[in-house]
Amino acid sequence: MPQHPTDPACIFCKIVAGTIPCLKVIEDDRLLAFLDIGPLSCGHTLIVPKGHYATLDQMPDDLAGACAAAAPRLSRAIKAATGASAWNLLQNNGRLSGQAVDHVHFHIIPRREADGLGYRWNPTKLDAEEGRTLLAAIQKAL
Amino acid sequence: MPQHPTDPACIFCKIVAGTIPCLKVIEDDRLLAFLDIGPLSCGHTLIVPKGHYATLDQMPDDLAGACAAAAPRLSRAIKAATGASAWNLLQNNGRLSGQAVDHVHFHIIPRREADGLGYRWNPTKLDAEEGRTLLAAIQKAL
Repeated sequence: MPQHPTDPACIFCKIVAGTIPCLKVIEDDRLLAFLDIGPLSCGHTLIVPKGHYATLDQMPDDLAGACAAAAPRLSRAIKAATGASAWNLLQNNGRLSGQAVDHVHFHIIPRREADGLGYRWNPTKLDAEEGRTLLAAIQKAL
Repeated sequence: MPQHPTDPACIFCKIVAGTIPCLKVIEDDRLLAFLDIGPLSCGHTLIVPKGHYATLDQMPDDLAGACAAAAPRLSRAIKAATGASAWNLLQNNGRLSGQAVDHVHFHIIPRREADGLGYRWNPTKLDAEEGRTLLAAIQKAL
């Protein structure tokens, strides 16, 4: 029996369990990395914890850490295999963020010149007073 | 003297050293989290390792893990303080990815309805044969 929480309806839990196949890059006792079947670019890979947690805030710190700790060597290998020089590590939480599968996953998305990918990125300027108020609210909630 | 690599010209190294001020959310011996001064949304926070590494692939695994291990509690606090229900964790590597400061940083970007943020997200379909070839190339490079 798995030692981690699972959701029998979750597609990533089925991949973890092996009942849905995947092109597996690495696996250990806590995580799995496999090629995204709907890649945004060549080499698009997902790092998925074996345990079912819908979003990062629900996840144990050490498991979040284990997933990210796999990213340096995975990204080196993906760079070497694909020739991409740039990439994004992206992890979405909640529908408004673009999350489609409610099982935490970290995207490694190789980037190339004129690949058509990108963000709508509209920076504002942090007001000093609002910043201090916000900081106090976050620290109170920590 | 710092126990980690530093770059005297790097703005995030200066923030780590305290020579440039920031609105600091948390700090420990390996990382710092502070409010982004050019926020994409209210609560936009950066998690920065104290050591200077330009990109994730150059970074020690355990330090990448430590940064991500701070994200669950930070995102819970940011959610509580801002009321955002969704957020992205984003880490960019290389100019083509959108990286502006060559010192690894993880963005926590709270998301709200009609916030104007988002991706150009153009999924393709992974060809089974190409996928196996790619997988073999990545695994060989691991």
